[in-house]
Amino acid sequence: MATVKYSAEQLKTFCEDAFFGFGFTREEAEQITDVLLLADLYGIASHGTQRLVRYHKAIEKGSVRVDARPEVVFETPVSAVIDGHSGMGQIISAYAMNMAIDKAKQSGMAFVTVRNSNHFGIAGYYTKMAVDAGLMGICTTNSQSIMVHTGSCQPILGSNPIAFAMPADPIPFWFDAATTVVPRGKLEVYHKADKALSDGWCVGADGNVSTDACEVLECIDGKEHVGGILPVGGASTEFGSHKGYGFSMMCELFSSITSSGATSNHHVRGKGVGAGTCHSFIAIDPKIFGDAEEIKAHLSTILQELRDAKRADENVPILTHGEKEAASYKEKMENGIDVDISTVSEMMAICDYLGMDSEKYLGKVDVSGARTRDYDSIYGGTNTTH
Amino acid sequence: MATVKYSAEQLKTFCEDAFFGFGFTREEAEQITDVLLLADLYGIASHGTQRLVRYHKAIEKGSVRVDARPEVVFETPVSAVIDGHSGMGQIISAYAMNMAIDKAKQSGMAFVTVRNSNHFGIAGYYTKMAVDAGLMGICTTNSQSIMVHTGSCQPILGSNPIAFAMPADPIPFWFDAATTVVPRGKLEVYHKADKALSDGWCVGADGNVSTDACEVLECIDGKEHVGGILPVGGASTEFGSHKGYGFSMMCELFSSITSSGATSNHHVRGKGVGAGTCHSFIAIDPKIFGDAEEIKAHLSTILQELRDAKRADENVPILTHGEKEAASYKEKMENGIDVDISTVSEMMAICDYLGMDSEKYLGKVDVSGARTRDYDSIYGGTNTTH
Repeated sequence: MATVKYSAEQLKTFCEDAFFGFGFTREEAEQITDVLLLADLYGIASHGTQRLVRYHKAIEKGSVRVDARPEVVFETPVSAVIDGHSGMGQIISAYAMNMAIDKAKQSGMAFVTVRNSNHFGIAGYYTKMAVDAGLMGICTTNSQSIMVHTGSCQPILGSNPIAFAMPADPIPFWFDAATTVVPRGKLEVYHKADKALSDGWCVGADGNVSTDACEVLECIDGKEHVGGILPVGGASTEFGSHKGYGFSMMCELFSSITSSGATSNHHVRGKGVGAGTCHSFIAIDPKIFGDAEEIKAHLSTILQELRDAKRADENVPILTHGEKEAASYKEKMENGIDVDISTVSEMMAICDYLGMDSEKYLGKVDVSGARTRDYDSIYGGTNTTH
Repeated sequence: MATVKYSAEQLKTFCEDAFFGFGFTREEAEQITDVLLLADLYGIASHGTQRLVRYHKAIEKGSVRVDARPEVVFETPVSAVIDGHSGMGQIISAYAMNMAIDKAKQSGMAFVTVRNSNHFGIAGYYTKMAVDAGLMGICTTNSQSIMVHTGSCQPILGSNPIAFAMPADPIPFWFDAATTVVPRGKLEVYHKADKALSDGWCVGADGNVSTDACEVLECIDGKEHVGGILPVGGASTEFGSHKGYGFSMMCELFSSITSSGATSNHHVRGKGVGAGTCHSFIAIDPKIFGDAEEIKAHLSTILQELRDAKRADENVPILTHGEKEAASYKEKMENGIDVDISTVSEMMAICDYLGMDSEKYLGKVDVSGARTRDYDSIYGGTNTTH
């Protein structure tokens, strides 16, 4: 599908003004934008500007509360439980990871857990905060229930990503992945591009494999709530379905269980009610294991050994986690970010909603080929608990 | 292949006397046996008595040092680094998890990391120790390099299992899985049973898929050291190969990087040198998040909801992690444990080696159909660093 290229600066200006327009403070709008933009710059299109329509609708329908402030409801020197009061996930989460970092610098390690939040963008943004402070960072979240766990055709768990990162040279180790085969956002990207899903990613309403992104999204968002995305490892234990299911459970344990918040299947979709999303933020100071610089050098060594291993295909380099994103960041800062016209049309709708001059921010774009979904009914219809 | 049924008590007596015979104290022999036997009782045959031959050879060739004692080389209130001095993995690891538990009870959470150890059995044994103390437990290890990471045909990382567990009713949540599609032990079990591997588990020396357990084992143990087991998620990023590769890296970060020990590709195989295996043991007291009983009840609720989800096949119940093992434990404590005759023949060889009366311990068994590998050359040949 057609795309339009914008500079990071253009998208930054648009997003900051839009979130300021939605009622956030300038500082908050900058924080939210920083998370979204890093996803686009890292090449994780599913979690960048393409996600704006969902934030727009969630704010419009009141499921994200613009004036909410995170509240610490339980605390020890190595932990905290935060109630997000249905605020914007990015604001709550940056607050929580900063707290984990501060506590880790005092106590050596810390585990901050959050309930009653909303979608927070890429989990890896927050582990990068830890790495920027010289620490190991771990972050998990639960999400709308979307994973068809082993033996089931009804989704209970979320796509439940896990991110962890650690300082290394020349670039940090940076892992961020959904525990489903693919994240929900990827289905949205495929839907907008009118592309068929790979056979083995998803099951439809009848419990059989589906390659139709629209069908699967309708299944997940529908009242029946059957079908969904398979765990990494696929449908059967033969190839480790139970492992993806288990790693997804790690996210529930860390996020919703420790915070006494809503498990993925009790997230709410609809008008005036926050999703109930739960997250965890763990920071660990390498100094609790000895010399932080030696530890960093040790990690850098194995990362290079992994890159230098014998290649399966001589022409395809072996990557370590975070390399692709670092290369994408450099390339996109130089050359700009491609945004598909479906997303541009959704950004134009935000301009209309907020009274922003869309041509000034986005240029004159023909969006007649845009494919988008009826987010109004998803966020404004009957509230459903999945 | 033919099997012989032994009671748990019979195997316990055999193992304890054998490890005592190898030179461990009675208490140490009991500890080692407790780990091995739990694997067999949980139905994880790859890590039970079938593994005895490898411990036997490792002790005989001096790569496991019977008289080594774990030494704490760095310590804070929330952490410790332990040098295992090439001792028996089970003894070092039980010591390390006990230390993590004690520290977690004092400080709320603790991270104990170990270097210069050897194979420690099932990771889930140690997380069970944490659960038995009312805590959340996490355990990782690295291992002989065996995983062909994404884009590579040379194994650098190990099968690198991750285990985590948390108290719940009616049974704890208990997850323990290699980050490869299957663990090495499964190849050994398939080899002994002369069964073909599933297409998509392993690649051979030529970098192509292999279903021949013997070929793959020879590849891994051979000098060329190419081929190996794929990460969970398979060979390509399309189905999440990079995720299994990433979770394997979590084990390296937690185990070898934090302990400044040998990464999987620097483990040593051979005479008189310990493998250099590294582990991590994390214990977290739920009290750092509020009321431990409420947290336990909250986890129990989602576990029941997962079991009660709509089934893909009406006749196949949905399991949560640890259920299969709990059922196996009950069944095998009542009815005994099936041991294949290849393993029985290896146990007989231990009797010969130690001067134990094999008929007294194992009965009169025809082992003429046994399939076993040349472990003497693996452990007694040229030392190799992979």
